[in-house]
Amino acid sequence: MRPLAALTALALAAPFSLPAQDAASPPTDEQMLRRLYDAALDGSPAFEQLRELTTRFPGRLSGTPAYDGAAQWSLEQLRALGADRTELQPVMAPSWERGAPERVELHAAGGSHDLAALALGGSVGTDPAGLRAPVVEVRDFESLAGADVRGKIVFFNRPMDPRSISAGAAYGGAVNQRTRGAAEAAKHGAVGVLVRSMTHALDDLPHTGTMTYLPDVPRIPAAAISTVAAERLSRTLRASPGAEVTMTLHCAPQEDRLTHNVIGEIRGAVFPEKVILVGGHLDSWDITPGAHDDGTGCIQSIEVLRLLKAVGYTPRHTIRCVLYANEENGLRGALEYTRLVAEKKEEHVLALETDSGGFRPSGFNLGNPAGDAHLRAARWRELFAPYGIFVFQKGQGGADVGPLLRYGYTVAGLMPDSQRYFDVHHTRADGIDAVNKREFELGAAAMAALVYLVDKYGL
Amino acid sequence: MRPLAALTALALAAPFSLPAQDAASPPTDEQMLRRLYDAALDGSPAFEQLRELTTRFPGRLSGTPAYDGAAQWSLEQLRALGADRTELQPVMAPSWERGAPERVELHAAGGSHDLAALALGGSVGTDPAGLRAPVVEVRDFESLAGADVRGKIVFFNRPMDPRSISAGAAYGGAVNQRTRGAAEAAKHGAVGVLVRSMTHALDDLPHTGTMTYLPDVPRIPAAAISTVAAERLSRTLRASPGAEVTMTLHCAPQEDRLTHNVIGEIRGAVFPEKVILVGGHLDSWDITPGAHDDGTGCIQSIEVLRLLKAVGYTPRHTIRCVLYANEENGLRGALEYTRLVAEKKEEHVLALETDSGGFRPSGFNLGNPAGDAHLRAARWRELFAPYGIFVFQKGQGGADVGPLLRYGYTVAGLMPDSQRYFDVHHTRADGIDAVNKREFELGAAAMAALVYLVDKYGL
Repeated sequence: MRPLAALTALALAAPFSLPAQDAASPPTDEQMLRRLYDAALDGSPAFEQLRELTTRFPGRLSGTPAYDGAAQWSLEQLRALGADRTELQPVMAPSWERGAPERVELHAAGGSHDLAALALGGSVGTDPAGLRAPVVEVRDFESLAGADVRGKIVFFNRPMDPRSISAGAAYGGAVNQRTRGAAEAAKHGAVGVLVRSMTHALDDLPHTGTMTYLPDVPRIPAAAISTVAAERLSRTLRASPGAEVTMTLHCAPQEDRLTHNVIGEIRGAVFPEKVILVGGHLDSWDITPGAHDDGTGCIQSIEVLRLLKAVGYTPRHTIRCVLYANEENGLRGALEYTRLVAEKKEEHVLALETDSGGFRPSGFNLGNPAGDAHLRAARWRELFAPYGIFVFQKGQGGADVGPLLRYGYTVAGLMPDSQRYFDVHHTRADGIDAVNKREFELGAAAMAALVYLVDKYGL
Repeated sequence: MRPLAALTALALAAPFSLPAQDAASPPTDEQMLRRLYDAALDGSPAFEQLRELTTRFPGRLSGTPAYDGAAQWSLEQLRALGADRTELQPVMAPSWERGAPERVELHAAGGSHDLAALALGGSVGTDPAGLRAPVVEVRDFESLAGADVRGKIVFFNRPMDPRSISAGAAYGGAVNQRTRGAAEAAKHGAVGVLVRSMTHALDDLPHTGTMTYLPDVPRIPAAAISTVAAERLSRTLRASPGAEVTMTLHCAPQEDRLTHNVIGEIRGAVFPEKVILVGGHLDSWDITPGAHDDGTGCIQSIEVLRLLKAVGYTPRHTIRCVLYANEENGLRGALEYTRLVAEKKEEHVLALETDSGGFRPSGFNLGNPAGDAHLRAARWRELFAPYGIFVFQKGQGGADVGPLLRYGYTVAGLMPDSQRYFDVHHTRADGIDAVNKREFELGAAAMAALVYLVDKYGL
């Protein structure tokens, strides 16, 4: 690309210099959005904060020292930007430990080979000497029901649908293999489960994630294998139907532990008792730096408070940043926060979550009991268009703010582009190197812009 | 992110299964777009073609064996997909060789240190022993005019504006330092030029690119240094204003050489004499695999022809893929193609270029003499919305199709997201690893969809 081509992009750019205002007249909404974006894109500390969070506190699963360190550090960031009130909100949450690294070995005619694997979060372990059994490949719970899996390891190998435009929707269509596969397979007498990693990518990176057991069904061990390992295992089974696998998992669920939501807020000047919430979840899986999931969302939420202060805006409502505990393996942070909101009857004007990665934002999903929040927000379409925000669609915000919707509050979720999220989701590769600084900053600016508009006009 | 959050993305997803049609009734436009996207996202060879192009033929500057190999290979791809006609169109183009690796050394109180650098394309070399001189830092041509640069090396250090939402616009606002810096500095008696690399990123990767001299102005050597090197040099100059640099460049402009545009087409069933063109440029800078610039555009253009065949569509107009030579250092491929179009009075219904990277597409820029092509294309907004294509804005297509606009034809350019493009543009890092397969495929599908609609309805 050369300069001529670059200039065709000019029309999308919002103006830098807006007409000088009389000092007495307040800035227009166009000016406020431009100031918020300028403050996010030029000289913000947010990306370096993200680097610090992800490099100092990787593997910050609830109940671990890494999580506690991240919580304390986040509290300090909120204090440093001038939050009027900060809090560590106690939460009892499920706990799980991986133990020594897992191993999954494929035994076939040519010998034994390791398959890149990660135990699923919540899984029980195997005998320390390993669990060896023949493997049966299935696509879904229907084909599982038709297969003889007694005493065998079930291998769920249905890929995410490549035809889905939204990678999130493709994930939603495949993830029941991971979340419920072990329980369903155990009903049919299986002794272990392997799951194809939840990603469109064909590579050797295993993706962990949560899974749940059912009462009165045996708890069998479960692990994800990389997509390359899944292809290899599948081909091996076609060539040698009797091929066996040894799974050796050292993981185990633990007693519930004390953890904390991290809260910081700027008190509202007009309606201090009414809250506009911005948040993400501070916990991550144990094996990942947790950048896109959800370090970016946490730092973006902190950044919203900083941006409003940086542009000199005095919010009418209390703007509260909530960094939730235990999203990955229990959602107890969100449930406890919501329980207390209901108990105190604390009005929430909007709860805006960001937990879909720090990629280029394209819009928001919004939900309220009347089902029209997305239509109401769409009245700001023209204000957002210069910043590439085009989508205002119906939704439920996200996992952590979703429970507030059931109490009658309005929720929203930032919608970044989804194509790259599942390249790194729940893997060791979800680090700062996978985050583009500007895409991340644009997300924070979009959130601050929505918070500003809702604070000023309501939704 | 967990399943609940993923489901909020569902509404953006286009439907997979559309109502069954009577076999006799032709598919609707909705169905045709869905089929084109399915064919692009599920099982396409395009990404592996991109891998082959960028790994077998890196550094394919016009006039080099790498370019000639890439041209022959591209021709074979077009034949293999069933093009009715292919052609290597001869073009005489400027040529330039880098020679041995360049070196830029900073001499300051603490000793001498190398600065990561690349000679600019088109630059003359220095004396083989190097050019040593004091350095004067300037921001632009205005501050250059006010500085005493006689006998010195001028260091242009104006960053791309971080506040610009479009990274392309930020590039457009900074790139005159690279393209015209040497000529302007030479007017004032400078002996050499260093330019801060054109990127928002702060890293140690130098970015090359084209530059031009002026008649009757001394031709002085010019190189880009990485942004980290630029920061270092700037700080050193503030501490030690007398600091010197030695530039050692072995590059030299060469005689014009014979090169070729690569053309392949599917003949139109109704209007074979009228052309819808899709294209990118096949050449790249000498030091790069040239993935985003513009291997992605070339393979996407080839893919448009394959997709139309894959879904069984018989185009009414001739669909022509043009892979231009010499975009990077002369634009002679486009000028020669356009000259022949004018000579033959060959009607072009649309010329669609893709040369802004293989990132997530967000829309198109369109231009025609009446200035309303973007408004006309916007009537398809609802067809494109499920695929995340929201932008239809006025533009000039791109560098290669721009000349056709001056002959009265309608042009367009695919608009991918711009944020990551200048992380790798004109660097060694612009390889297959920097391309997300699905983002790249979505671009090809969007192009094929526009070609289909224009073929069927005109613009």
